[in-house]
Amino acid sequence: MSEQPVTLGRPKDEKTSVDILAATLQLVRLHGYEAVSITAIAKQAGVAKQTIYNRWSTKADLVLEAVFKETGRIAAAVPDDEQTSCQQQLSLFLCNVFEHLSYDARVLAALIAAAQKDEAFREAFKKGFVKPREAMLIDILNRAQQRGELSKHRDVSILSAFVHGAFWYALLQGDALNSELAQSLAAEIFWQG
Amino acid sequence: MSEQPVTLGRPKDEKTSVDILAATLQLVRLHGYEAVSITAIAKQAGVAKQTIYNRWSTKADLVLEAVFKETGRIAAAVPDDEQTSCQQQLSLFLCNVFEHLSYDARVLAALIAAAQKDEAFREAFKKGFVKPREAMLIDILNRAQQRGELSKHRDVSILSAFVHGAFWYALLQGDALNSELAQSLAAEIFWQG
Repeated sequence: MSEQPVTLGRPKDEKTSVDILAATLQLVRLHGYEAVSITAIAKQAGVAKQTIYNRWSTKADLVLEAVFKETGRIAAAVPDDEQTSCQQQLSLFLCNVFEHLSYDARVLAALIAAAQKDEAFREAFKKGFVKPREAMLIDILNRAQQRGELSKHRDVSILSAFVHGAFWYALLQGDALNSELAQSLAAEIFWQG
Repeated sequence: MSEQPVTLGRPKDEKTSVDILAATLQLVRLHGYEAVSITAIAKQAGVAKQTIYNRWSTKADLVLEAVFKETGRIAAAVPDDEQTSCQQQLSLFLCNVFEHLSYDARVLAALIAAAQKDEAFREAFKKGFVKPREAMLIDILNRAQQRGELSKHRDVSILSAFVHGAFWYALLQGDALNSELAQSLAAEIFWQG
């Protein structure tokens, strides 16, 4: 039996992709979505433009993947913890999302804007970004209904639209997204007379 | 005493403005916000470009005013009617807004997108469009609290953000805005255990 590790995938190619994604996020944060070009990203990552076009069809696809990875890292699903009420879980989830948005708010707003001009991009954005985050929130609300912390008669999809909508609304108007807002949103969703 | 009517304002100038606004709305609906130029609007309205620039600084300002006037006409405040519950008033208000959006959804989405690139435009959009509509909704919710149809302990500004946010969220994702959604949103806002 050999002690040599089995080589899985294509590590050199993977490192190139990681470098390109990191360069993309860095430049988009510095200059905004509109101002960044594939040329500038290639230069920053130290690769040929064709290397980028071999992996992503458009700047939008590349920026979407860079932002998705970052969002997945910071604003991941909240684990189900029996000691934590679902209202607190929702508040925590929103605090995580808002922490990401504290430095990527303009990036995300520019992606939402770009999605208004291009239906294919809007669908990609919905599938890769919007729907996974909706699923995380609906998980919390379903759990709350199972635990008896939220009435079974409430419409979970509408409550999810309330929460996501309220922070998109604030984001797109340049309003503050902070832990106070996270707590207020969670409190109104779980309000009981 | 003369029987001659007193001439108020500058009717000829006013008609020119009305014509320009009508041409703007017509072209923006046909071709979308991005594709329309001041040149095309001037041609459609039968005026010189300078006539437009004498009245509006930018295409964005002109389109905003055209859309504000249309929104004000269709999605105006709901009158306070004691026979109608505040939940029904909210539902009716949203049906009016959604009726306007049934043909101007892409125009509004493009304006929200344009506001992401230009802070001055975002402030103009907030002041002229967003805030007046928030005030109408908050009026309904305050009225509901006075009537005892909504608990005085609820945070009216968060509930307003829920409603506006939910339909912006649907609008920006190209989802349907219809009377069913209007009723569901109103039902969840006024939900009582």
